[in-house]
Amino acid sequence: MVNFRGMKKRLLLWIAAAPLLALAQPQEDAAMIKKISDDILRNGKAYELLYQLTKQVGGRLAGSPQMYKAEAWGQQALAQMGADRVYLQECKVPRWVRGGTDQASVVRIAGKPAARKLDVLALGNSLGSGKPVTAEVITIQDFDELEKRKNDIKGKIVYYNNAFDPTIVKTFIAYGQAGVYRRSGPSRAAKYGAVGVIIRSLTESEANDPHTGGMTYNDSFPKIPALAVGPRDADYLWELGKKSAFSITLKTNGHFLPDTTGHNVIGELKGSEFPDEIITIGGHLDSWDVNEGAHDDGAGVVHTIEILRVFKALGYQPKRTIRFVLFANEENGLRGGTQYAAEAKAKGEKHIFALESDEGGFTPRGFGFTAPKEKLQRIQAWLPLLSPYGTAELSDGGGGADIGPLNRNLGTPLAGFLPDPQRYFDLHHARSDVFENVHKRELLLGAVNMAALIYLVDKYGF
Amino acid sequence: MVNFRGMKKRLLLWIAAAPLLALAQPQEDAAMIKKISDDILRNGKAYELLYQLTKQVGGRLAGSPQMYKAEAWGQQALAQMGADRVYLQECKVPRWVRGGTDQASVVRIAGKPAARKLDVLALGNSLGSGKPVTAEVITIQDFDELEKRKNDIKGKIVYYNNAFDPTIVKTFIAYGQAGVYRRSGPSRAAKYGAVGVIIRSLTESEANDPHTGGMTYNDSFPKIPALAVGPRDADYLWELGKKSAFSITLKTNGHFLPDTTGHNVIGELKGSEFPDEIITIGGHLDSWDVNEGAHDDGAGVVHTIEILRVFKALGYQPKRTIRFVLFANEENGLRGGTQYAAEAKAKGEKHIFALESDEGGFTPRGFGFTAPKEKLQRIQAWLPLLSPYGTAELSDGGGGADIGPLNRNLGTPLAGFLPDPQRYFDLHHARSDVFENVHKRELLLGAVNMAALIYLVDKYGF
Repeated sequence: MVNFRGMKKRLLLWIAAAPLLALAQPQEDAAMIKKISDDILRNGKAYELLYQLTKQVGGRLAGSPQMYKAEAWGQQALAQMGADRVYLQECKVPRWVRGGTDQASVVRIAGKPAARKLDVLALGNSLGSGKPVTAEVITIQDFDELEKRKNDIKGKIVYYNNAFDPTIVKTFIAYGQAGVYRRSGPSRAAKYGAVGVIIRSLTESEANDPHTGGMTYNDSFPKIPALAVGPRDADYLWELGKKSAFSITLKTNGHFLPDTTGHNVIGELKGSEFPDEIITIGGHLDSWDVNEGAHDDGAGVVHTIEILRVFKALGYQPKRTIRFVLFANEENGLRGGTQYAAEAKAKGEKHIFALESDEGGFTPRGFGFTAPKEKLQRIQAWLPLLSPYGTAELSDGGGGADIGPLNRNLGTPLAGFLPDPQRYFDLHHARSDVFENVHKRELLLGAVNMAALIYLVDKYGF
Repeated sequence: MVNFRGMKKRLLLWIAAAPLLALAQPQEDAAMIKKISDDILRNGKAYELLYQLTKQVGGRLAGSPQMYKAEAWGQQALAQMGADRVYLQECKVPRWVRGGTDQASVVRIAGKPAARKLDVLALGNSLGSGKPVTAEVITIQDFDELEKRKNDIKGKIVYYNNAFDPTIVKTFIAYGQAGVYRRSGPSRAAKYGAVGVIIRSLTESEANDPHTGGMTYNDSFPKIPALAVGPRDADYLWELGKKSAFSITLKTNGHFLPDTTGHNVIGELKGSEFPDEIITIGGHLDSWDVNEGAHDDGAGVVHTIEILRVFKALGYQPKRTIRFVLFANEENGLRGGTQYAAEAKAKGEKHIFALESDEGGFTPRGFGFTAPKEKLQRIQAWLPLLSPYGTAELSDGGGGADIGPLNRNLGTPLAGFLPDPQRYFDLHHARSDVFENVHKRELLLGAVNMAALIYLVDKYGF
């Protein structure tokens, strides 16, 4: 009875939105989306698939043995769920290896000879120190301070204390702001003669987990070792720096093996009316080596497979061709997404829309779009169809790293799934990004909202 | 820069909403709400307060020694945060005690003599079995089946298998539907001669935690023992019932001690312009005995105190009188909320609005209102001011158990805070409702949205 009342309310909302929606058949669409939701919430396989990917495959950095295991798993899952066709798309991927346990200890404090071991992780793509490096530490807040103190840097280890701004509600914005210290902080310090860099991990959590993640060297400067410390060790270093001079001994072992061959794993449902119009939905199959890649991006992978499952389970025959893509090598190279767009362009494919899930498996909030304004307005009229399932915004701006090249090379409109962002950076690139930290219903509801959006795009075009 | 762009977007939304909002000064209000949010996200004490309440006081059922400890803690916290006045409002509360460890074992399976121990919790307010009770079990799905099989019930233990409907996205609706088995299932079975009742716990979780919670006997029938089993044991019993006859031996020890004296703990900020217009904001201080009452309702308690803290920290002088109320005895008697409304009525107080947080400390989604339609429409025009902080709905219907009597006795409009509801029933009334399962930023963001709503109601009235 409560549900029935709910349905009436939704229909009233629909009547209000109707003038915006020339093509839509709201009752039929509402009924289909309810079927999608009911089937996923009752029979969804995303959580079990995630268990397999995280516990049976595990961390799966590009080029690792687990990458191949993940590719085989993905092929099998897409085939089992009933894709018309499952195939691999080859691409060269880098092969960075951590090469051992990253270590760092505070070794000299004026008046206090005792060493303190820090919990650290080398940044992805960083090169190892070889033998241990010991140097005095200079603690600085940000790049402004780096520039002011550029003459003090030589021969030292630079510690960047730049933290997430906790007042930014949308945590991905805070990540965007702080992330530059991870990506380019090492080379900016090496420019002034630093012999190593340690960053405060990119997180709002108070747990002391260090968070790794990709960095890139500027080839003009020495390729110095680069690590992240967890927030409590970061606080310790920052406070220590105010009180006394100190040194750190660090040892990292990262290096590159020769590039190897990886693959995008692609399942396809052929369109019945417009087979040449392609809709892409995907997440990335690779993850960092230190965790299970559960939210990043196991969630996006199993969301993708779940949508295929529910369409087949409901006997839904898409009008347009839908590609379910498990991208290779997002974390430290983006070779999979780059290859996908390059082949699409080379073959003259018509990509009308692409959706990525790469912000975790948390409770759904909505979608962010990179699309022309008039198209976005048409999509926004679908809000009453999606809001019963958690979508509260269909906003301007968004997409995903792997589908970005489709937009840049072919002009394809994009969307990114927006789950609630408060817990993501507790786990992102840290050892704690494991299956146990994913909630089944939150994960399934993400798939519900994504499947509903894809259904509407397939039916009405973009 | 990103934030600045965000602000401009919000102002544009404001211009669109402006005709609905005669009194509002959107820029001033947006700025004040941003200050509230920044201060709570930077300096909020809700999480530390919750640590104290859960770890230093613990489970705090009405009448227990911990109830008094919680009252003293609440008084001190409200005083420390700067209430103009802190006082206690006396009320008689029931004193139910569990009286020992609840036990149940499957003791006879045709052909399989081995016993299986079940993980059980007696329902709150249920009376103990005294000595162990052994009886054959009849497994039934719902009350319809109970009625059909009413002649088979005598002398048996009834197992109700009624489960949450997983397809209902708003889990509190599923709880409302299934909750009747906990509240009145025991007496409905006793009416037909049952000697005990076991219910499937009210949860969507797959963890095997049993969930307790309040029940009420119908005085016309024997007061039989009543317990909850966790979902995995529930599945086991249901499947077993399809295959063979079996018995259960159960022992529970619940009983009532004489009523005792409890208190609503109230902090007040006196209004500067309309001191006689009272706004109430609250949560309930009591919890079940088997956990720390972290989400239920430690979160509501610390939300309440946090709002007082931020108003004082920002030097906000309310126009109307705001009462911060930590209610007594919500879980098994509602004596605190009843007393609060009764005294309000007796004194002829003018209560213009009441807000409760009693759905957990999860990421905010919005508020549900019990209010006249024209007032709700005015409130809904505030959405653009609240949406940057997570509020996506200001919907019709809602309130809270403790503030319900204000509406029934005085006609006070109500609102209930609506956090995301997906994880609540994993923990609700189970041993797992502990501090560790509350997320700091999610908790703080709840306080941000509630404080912003109270600020607007204080400024513009309701």
